[in-house]
Amino acid sequence: MTSPPLTPLADSLPASVPFVGPEALERASGTIFKARLGANESVFGPSPKAIAAMAKAASEVWQYGDPESHGLRHALAAHHSVTPENIMVGEGIDGLLGYLVRLYVEQGTAVVTSAGAYPTFNYHVAGFGGELHMVPYRDDHEDPDALLAMAKETNARLIYFANPDNPMGSWHDAVAVQRMIDAVPDDCLLILDEAYIELAPDGTAPALDMNNPNVVRMRTFSKGHGMAGARVGYALGEAENIRAFNKIRNHFGMSRISQAGALAALNDQDYLSDVCTKVAASRDRIAEIARENGLTPLPSATNFVTVDCGKDGDYARKVLAGLLAQGIFVRMPFVAPQDRAIRVSCGTPADMDLLADALPQALKAAG
Amino acid sequence: MTSPPLTPLADSLPASVPFVGPEALERASGTIFKARLGANESVFGPSPKAIAAMAKAASEVWQYGDPESHGLRHALAAHHSVTPENIMVGEGIDGLLGYLVRLYVEQGTAVVTSAGAYPTFNYHVAGFGGELHMVPYRDDHEDPDALLAMAKETNARLIYFANPDNPMGSWHDAVAVQRMIDAVPDDCLLILDEAYIELAPDGTAPALDMNNPNVVRMRTFSKGHGMAGARVGYALGEAENIRAFNKIRNHFGMSRISQAGALAALNDQDYLSDVCTKVAASRDRIAEIARENGLTPLPSATNFVTVDCGKDGDYARKVLAGLLAQGIFVRMPFVAPQDRAIRVSCGTPADMDLLADALPQALKAAG
Repeated sequence: MTSPPLTPLADSLPASVPFVGPEALERASGTIFKARLGANESVFGPSPKAIAAMAKAASEVWQYGDPESHGLRHALAAHHSVTPENIMVGEGIDGLLGYLVRLYVEQGTAVVTSAGAYPTFNYHVAGFGGELHMVPYRDDHEDPDALLAMAKETNARLIYFANPDNPMGSWHDAVAVQRMIDAVPDDCLLILDEAYIELAPDGTAPALDMNNPNVVRMRTFSKGHGMAGARVGYALGEAENIRAFNKIRNHFGMSRISQAGALAALNDQDYLSDVCTKVAASRDRIAEIARENGLTPLPSATNFVTVDCGKDGDYARKVLAGLLAQGIFVRMPFVAPQDRAIRVSCGTPADMDLLADALPQALKAAG
Repeated sequence: MTSPPLTPLADSLPASVPFVGPEALERASGTIFKARLGANESVFGPSPKAIAAMAKAASEVWQYGDPESHGLRHALAAHHSVTPENIMVGEGIDGLLGYLVRLYVEQGTAVVTSAGAYPTFNYHVAGFGGELHMVPYRDDHEDPDALLAMAKETNARLIYFANPDNPMGSWHDAVAVQRMIDAVPDDCLLILDEAYIELAPDGTAPALDMNNPNVVRMRTFSKGHGMAGARVGYALGEAENIRAFNKIRNHFGMSRISQAGALAALNDQDYLSDVCTKVAASRDRIAEIARENGLTPLPSATNFVTVDCGKDGDYARKVLAGLLAQGIFVRMPFVAPQDRAIRVSCGTPADMDLLADALPQALKAAG
């Protein structure tokens, strides 16, 4: 017996995963990580109010979640001073990116991103047969001018731009981002991924303009709000663009528990502020540890610090391996020249002590 | 400013939802349902052990879920005496159906289902440009012979067949289903949706044959296990078919809380047995209430009973409206002649009392 044939596109795709999960790494190595600093999760966790709301919702989970995420969407609208029609709640930014790509990309559609930017976006573009065009980072920053120029050159339908950026932690200020938004071609959509925006300095996010059909902004409860495992993201955009998600999305895809948790998290902005303070302190500590070891921490507007190891990618990969071998889970940029660095998520003071202990040995082993 | 153009396929799709959620109906009517008996949720809820596991996992939700769902997948493999490579865990059967359709259907691909069967499957097929061919039910049962004949006639890539069936609650025994499986054409995949299988009589599910590449079976924690809001389903199939999900799925799409809950639910089979007993009692009670009101309950192997109202669709819609107006949320088949019936999910004894009170008035109002 032979398997029924996949579509030619599906058949051409590898069975791949954008990131191997930390649990899989643990299983492969047979050890449990002592510090989980590789996925830009928030070790500070969600608000206790969100935890309580999720625990309460667990006993109500026999009910499907509201496919309209009505309560959460209305609360987000009030929070951002937009209308609920400008918001689509989805299964994390990953899920929403998949939907957006599906809406705009068919085989051969040109899409622009930065070489070394978020691989899950690239995975979705490949998955729908789009043609990826990549521009290099410029001084460890995504390069708006180069992205726009490439979009014009290739007649691209989508541009992916993260601000702040992952994996470098760098950012552009609101003026620069607004200038980019204003220059997006008419037939092109800018996906502005602001997953880390709550952790960035004031003046990083341009004002929300929900009349502009050429930009959709992505936000999440995974980073500042500390709910990565709950899978709640949302898109902010012009109402007609947002409505298009309803053509294809998995309407009943949201966990009811996650909806309840996100709503409670949103309503606890004091806790979020507290997390921002802790993240800033941990960024400082990572930078200090890096400098103590002769490495160069890059400025960060996120919940991680990318640390320049000062040599090439092979060297940084050895440093990374040395940390992993000591039970410190970190990741690193995939693409040169950014792969001269490792990327360390913020952690508790105890996590930072483990990092401080492990880094010298990792460097020594790297030679 | 104009919106960037969607793909021609996306542009052609309506912004639709397969089902309007009960919360949306409540908002539209301005009343809260007294009995929620319309979505085939399990009012008996999940195992207390699952609730406890989810409450515990809520405090760990800062971590992404394991993209391989390793623990749950291995437990399911042991439970079903198959290998983990035969199992894909996903965001409910709805999410898995979307992935399967994407893998096998491109514009113009023929797909076969029954007229009036699960609309979310049809939504996915339309969403990828597939061409749906429908065969009628036969005596309120899905008709394997007609499905197979239509598949051969149209050179279909996919056949959708639910056993037990929703919305009719009817079923075929394992011998009949195995006969169907054996007759699936080589280049065709049978999607055997067994969402309700835990609630069906012994002898309903054919033995699992994980060497057959022409059938993928769908299971869920939403029905018998009472975790609809957690969004956990799984596909059982030949390893290469299962591996294909990894080409396109949202690898980090599973809620960590839901993974923990499903694992605990799976490990509490005693609770599931208890639910089956309660469901059977509620089925009997719905049937009794129906008969007391001169209506005909159809046999059911699910957690709902479809009740023949004895006249046409317009009449049944009036009966449905009469129940909704009294705060009893129920649904009904969409397609004639099955739309002569309403579909009532099993409930608590209190829910049943509310139904018993409301039905006479609904029938009276329907005239």
